[in-house]
Amino acid sequence: GGAAAAPKPADPYAHEPERLPALIVRSQKPMNSETPMELLTAALVTPNDLFYVRNHLPVPVVNPDTYRLKIEGEGVRAVELSLEDLKTKFKRHSITATLQCTGNRRQEYNTSGRPVKGLEWDGGSISTAVWTGVRLRDVLRAAGLEEDEPLVQHIQFEGLDTDMAETVYGASIEVDKAMDPAGDVLLAFEMNGQALPRDHGYPLRVVVPGVAGCRSVKWVGKIIASAEESTSFWQQKDYKSFGPNVDWDNVDWSSAPAIQAMPVTSQICEPAAGTQVDDDEVTLKGYAWSGSGQGIIRVDVSADGGKTWHQAELKKVPQKRGRGWAWALWEATLPVPKGHKGPLELVCKATDESYNTQPESAAPIWNLRGVNCNSWHRVLVDVQ
Amino acid sequence: GGAAAAPKPADPYAHEPERLPALIVRSQKPMNSETPMELLTAALVTPNDLFYVRNHLPVPVVNPDTYRLKIEGEGVRAVELSLEDLKTKFKRHSITATLQCTGNRRQEYNTSGRPVKGLEWDGGSISTAVWTGVRLRDVLRAAGLEEDEPLVQHIQFEGLDTDMAETVYGASIEVDKAMDPAGDVLLAFEMNGQALPRDHGYPLRVVVPGVAGCRSVKWVGKIIASAEESTSFWQQKDYKSFGPNVDWDNVDWSSAPAIQAMPVTSQICEPAAGTQVDDDEVTLKGYAWSGSGQGIIRVDVSADGGKTWHQAELKKVPQKRGRGWAWALWEATLPVPKGHKGPLELVCKATDESYNTQPESAAPIWNLRGVNCNSWHRVLVDVQ
Ligand SMILES: [Mo]
Ligand SMILES: [Mo]
Repeated sequence: GGAAAAPKPADPYAHEPERLPALIVRSQKPMNSETPMELLTAALVTPNDLFYVRNHLPVPVVNPDTYRLKIEGEGVRAVELSLEDLKTKFKRHSITATLQCTGNRRQEYNTSGRPVKGLEWDGGSISTAVWTGVRLRDVLRAAGLEEDEPLVQHIQFEGLDTDMAETVYGASIEVDKAMDPAGDVLLAFEMNGQALPRDHGYPLRVVVPGVAGCRSVKWVGKIIASAEESTSFWQQKDYKSFGPNVDWDNVDWSSAPAIQAMPVTSQICEPAAGTQVDDDEVTLKGYAWSGSGQGIIRVDVSADGGKTWHQAELKKVPQKRGRGWAWALWEATLPVPKGHKGPLELVCKATDESYNTQPESAAPIWNLRGVNCNSWHRVLVDVQ
Repeated sequence: GGAAAAPKPADPYAHEPERLPALIVRSQKPMNSETPMELLTAALVTPNDLFYVRNHLPVPVVNPDTYRLKIEGEGVRAVELSLEDLKTKFKRHSITATLQCTGNRRQEYNTSGRPVKGLEWDGGSISTAVWTGVRLRDVLRAAGLEEDEPLVQHIQFEGLDTDMAETVYGASIEVDKAMDPAGDVLLAFEMNGQALPRDHGYPLRVVVPGVAGCRSVKWVGKIIASAEESTSFWQQKDYKSFGPNVDWDNVDWSSAPAIQAMPVTSQICEPAAGTQVDDDEVTLKGYAWSGSGQGIIRVDVSADGGKTWHQAELKKVPQKRGRGWAWALWEATLPVPKGHKGPLELVCKATDESYNTQPESAAPIWNLRGVNCNSWHRVLVDVQ
């Protein structure tokens, strides 16, 4: 008889979890979806099923009973840990931390006149949760890693998510961040008091607070202590930022560091662009966040395109200076300039504990990957 | 006989050290002087006698043999340490760190249209040195301070400099910064390999890298571990930053935190404003720095007011991520736009490791004390 038909390749996306229809989908396979603006500001902590989803590959199916976290590399003993080991042999810690995609607000580079490649995120690829797990530091130390081990400069993470060619998602952070007790890097198994949802890394993910979401590897299966960064595409040739003079024709990927910490940003979540508003006053709601643990100390808002400013009321979880991992939500009610009818430009800009603020416009920070868009957020409403 | 004549009050400034005439004096008593632009970029480390001087009071005369550093407060044993104790009983550390006055570049707020009060600093109240001494952390631990001692939130410093009413200069930092081994806070007795000059705190000063210069208390005589910040004028009612809507009529000093870390900044040191330049190309030199230990990763420069950008060559001391205490010096040679004659606007803006950048203009970050001016630096030259 003839050769058997080649087996039909299974759909690698056949085992995706269910998601709420409220999420705004930017890509289906892999799933990338953002939280709607009006839901973002409802609470300091985002409900699990409304947390933005940034997947690079299909969601893996992981059996928690056979799951093992492997630790290997320089300066450590090779170790395998079950979930039970992690939950019973290490002290638990919880942190409230915001995660944000480096591409958040990427749309604004496109409207600034120079298109960029990548998912067309608006400002909703950011969310906040209470993460519970164990400190990466404690796990590394238990595997024998010494402080200031000269052979180790980076901690690499590999996910259990793979593409058809069995390439796994990978990223790394610097060992100093990983080992800093005040760096608060977690191996988390809970999100807002529940087991991690599959979309957010079940059964275990890394949470690197203050740092671009892409380094908080989900479904983490392996941790490698190394002299080198992760060699993954996403570490080496994707999540990097260049000057506005660098484009796809002249880019030298090795000339820029991998993005770790992210800059101060803020967003007007309400009202939406095009909303019709009364001619007496307008109420704005939004979020503000800065990386590197720099808390938000002030949000300035304007109803005249940035000529005069008012201060928003901030709502935030109390966090220590330098460990301000969570966003601030804010609200402000501004007078509409007297007699104004028609388009009105609302603006916000945040200031963090280091007094870093946002640049006025996107063009001077344009970069070919369209990352770190943190210019003043501007919304045009219509005064009736 | 009649009463004796009241003794003529001694001039509290009778014992000031000699200074180089090259320094640009902004006030004589107390001495406040900045480094000339063209000398700032000569080396990564500023020579001691060219380091900017920011004094709040007369320079005290301190006898090194009888000098004692007093430690007191909550969670510590009261201790007195001689210079000999400090130099022989603790491990020595050296760091290269930039110090900057919060008022650096204050002039630019005045030219933005809303005058501010304070010393009229141009961009030269910033300098860099190699500081050698002992870790504040080690000294506090030797005095019995435990990690996470709940009674202690702040470490206060008192200088030996006093005014006529015997008010001493004082400031404080947060205990977490003081106790963080990676925070690199020093009690320094050497500056660039020499004993501290009198203008810079002889015989002992605090060096708080990444933080506003005013917290790096000179001539430090007392260290107090406390639940509270320093109650000094300079901590409570001077070095704070507000929104552009707050002025001297409505300011509530308690509503803003004391400035600690400072934002990313940069300056074109050469050419000076008004310089006549050739019509083919122009060479720019300057510095860039960011607080919180965020190193500089890029300086973008423009010869057309910020429409197109080039990248400067950076020169910096290698420092770890998150401990980038020293500035970067930079240089760039840019083409003059073809056919351009007359005024040409040169611009620079820096990006730090957190991808924070500088705002375009000073007006939106205007604040009543005129601090933290970090908008794009702009220099108008004249093309012949
Ligand atoms: Mo991302
Ligand atoms: Mo200052």
